[in-house]
Amino acid sequence: MTKGRVEAFSDGVIAILITIMVLELHSPDGAEWAALVPVLPVFLAYVLSFVILGIYWNNHHHMLHATKQVDGAVLWANLHLLFWLSLIPFGTGWVGNSHFAPLPLALYGTVLLFCAIAYTILQTVIIAHHGMTAEVAEALHHDLKGKASLVLYAAAIPLGFVWRWLAVAIYVTVALVWLVPDRRIEKTLRRSA
Amino acid sequence: MTKGRVEAFSDGVIAILITIMVLELHSPDGAEWAALVPVLPVFLAYVLSFVILGIYWNNHHHMLHATKQVDGAVLWANLHLLFWLSLIPFGTGWVGNSHFAPLPLALYGTVLLFCAIAYTILQTVIIAHHGMTAEVAEALHHDLKGKASLVLYAAAIPLGFVWRWLAVAIYVTVALVWLVPDRRIEKTLRRSA
Amino acid sequence: MTKGRVEAFSDGVIAILITIMVLELHSPDGAEWAALVPVLPVFLAYVLSFVILGIYWNNHHHMLHATKQVDGAVLWANLHLLFWLSLIPFGTGWVGNSHFAPLPLALYGTVLLFCAIAYTILQTVIIAHHGMTAEVAEALHHDLKGKASLVLYAAAIPLGFVWRWLAVAIYVTVALVWLVPDRRIEKTLRRSA
Amino acid sequence: MTKGRVEAFSDGVIAILITIMVLELHSPDGAEWAALVPVLPVFLAYVLSFVILGIYWNNHHHMLHATKQVDGAVLWANLHLLFWLSLIPFGTGWVGNSHFAPLPLALYGTVLLFCAIAYTILQTVIIAHHGMTAEVAEALHHDLKGKASLVLYAAAIPLGFVWRWLAVAIYVTVALVWLVPDRRIEKTLRRSA
Repeated sequence: MTKGRVEAFSDGVIAILITIMVLELHSPDGAEWAALVPVLPVFLAYVLSFVILGIYWNNHHHMLHATKQVDGAVLWANLHLLFWLSLIPFGTGWVGNSHFAPLPLALYGTVLLFCAIAYTILQTVIIAHHGMTAEVAEALHHDLKGKASLVLYAAAIPLGFVWRWLAVAIYVTVALVWLVPDRRIEKTLRRSA
Repeated sequence: MTKGRVEAFSDGVIAILITIMVLELHSPDGAEWAALVPVLPVFLAYVLSFVILGIYWNNHHHMLHATKQVDGAVLWANLHLLFWLSLIPFGTGWVGNSHFAPLPLALYGTVLLFCAIAYTILQTVIIAHHGMTAEVAEALHHDLKGKASLVLYAAAIPLGFVWRWLAVAIYVTVALVWLVPDRRIEKTLRRSA
Repeated sequence: MTKGRVEAFSDGVIAILITIMVLELHSPDGAEWAALVPVLPVFLAYVLSFVILGIYWNNHHHMLHATKQVDGAVLWANLHLLFWLSLIPFGTGWVGNSHFAPLPLALYGTVLLFCAIAYTILQTVIIAHHGMTAEVAEALHHDLKGKASLVLYAAAIPLGFVWRWLAVAIYVTVALVWLVPDRRIEKTLRRSA
Repeated sequence: MTKGRVEAFSDGVIAILITIMVLELHSPDGAEWAALVPVLPVFLAYVLSFVILGIYWNNHHHMLHATKQVDGAVLWANLHLLFWLSLIPFGTGWVGNSHFAPLPLALYGTVLLFCAIAYTILQTVIIAHHGMTAEVAEALHHDLKGKASLVLYAAAIPLGFVWRWLAVAIYVTVALVWLVPDRRIEKTLRRSA
């Protein structure tokens, strides 16, 4: 029951975040091709953030599916994650409107870094509270992908000031790596089923 | 359980999309009839998009009702559909604000075309993963209405540059054809019940 | 199951509608009392619409609670109701921003009238499809409050052009009458329990 | 069933409120550090309101978890709470945009005071309707934290006109006190489990 409401609330927040980003895609002034040009960078930033939020929703979904119970600590670790996710639309809008300028990209990367940290904290709290089956906890033990993401985001923030497209390339790469859903959990769940 | 959360998340996103389109209906400047005039095309575009999103919600509802299980591929095919649906408010706003100009209509049609393609992919993925009862899969086998929609949308995009009301007429026609809920599934479900 | 998803989708749409009206309460320019003055009529219109949407949610809740099954006709009657409800934020914003001018009040009343008609249609469709227990259907048979609302809204629309506060008084009165939840259903349900 | 829909609707509204506050974080004009400066106070106000809404969601969650049944009075007491919560984004935006000016802070405090009053009313209504287990009702009997919050908010409103950071300090303090979830209920529930 309790778990169901955490899922429902998280679904609600992520669904709204993923959707209000569309509000940054302002209706162009004019009806010719040229009017679409300023919307293009906003659109590209939107696509990236949509995929990233989709990944978080997918992995959150898998993680909570494998969670047996939640308590106050999990509720707050989850709200902490939602807080950082809620800043993605702001970062996305600034990156798009500034046409991928270095400082907005650095802020965007910082938000993504804190999202990744918050997700790691949530995962750690759930495992620490024995909220997960031992198999899943073990499967997540090394969490190479999670650690690599943290390192890559932390590297992209300064690198973007040197060459901004490098930062963009890193953000896209991390997203592509995660596009594959958390097969570790899926596999373990199937094995233990 | 897993299916429930996919439904809840999709419901959330579609509910938000259908609702934030209203934000394009800006409060008129002034309190006379004349002030309402610029809102009218935005309103008409809103009505069309509300019906189209309602159709997607209805059919999505029926399709997932007939689905027995979902996996990672279904989750991503579903997110892919939600991505294209999320562009409908942008297309609607541009069509309305430009008073149904040809280029915005073409972009709107392109978004609708990709929504229809994404829906077809989701349907195919669910059937391919044996996620549906054999009866429903068979009922959807020919999917004339789905294929006709793809052809009509693809035709409307260039035709709108010749005569824009032809494109509008096609979008309205496709919506009317789909207004009838997916009786194929309903009938098959009733037969197998 | 099907009913649950109709409830969830309706809850989502009404929750969003009730909330995005707040976006019309723009942050005042300045930090003195005078800056709050232009927000006041928008706020009053917001309070009225919040109560009206709350009433719809409450009665919708009771009605679907007494509904045994839903089909395609119910889905569309429900979407039709949500469409008219979705225009309440637009009407509210115009009424507030125009400081309760006659034409915006008439449009607001028209939207409320169509909401009431759409609710009546939904109720009729549910009863016609034998989706309700006989007791509830009977309890709703006369539906004096529903019919009176239709008449009052229809009267308020022209009367507002004569004296606009009369229209406001009627909208407030109808809301107050409905603030009492649908005891007819509650009572019948309790009797049959 | 009924309780589930109250939870779902409340989750929806709170999720949207917590998220649309982000829309006040407008994309900065420019891509340098200086462009971020005007966003900073809005961001700080956002963090405070996010935590406060998170606390309400958490406590609402615990309270309804301990509630056995809901009726019309509970539905309206809940909508009354949601109404005051819905004004938090407006207060937050004004506090942020005015850089924590005294009047916006007083209005913000007034909104928080009424949220706290509405929460107390909801709690009282649930207990009065025997909707809670006796243990939980007893645990909430003294409700020192709830009463202290009312007093502190009422004090902060005038104090902010003397020294505005005092009001801010009080709002932050109340939030920190509540960050600890309602262990009274958690403890009692565990004891009676």
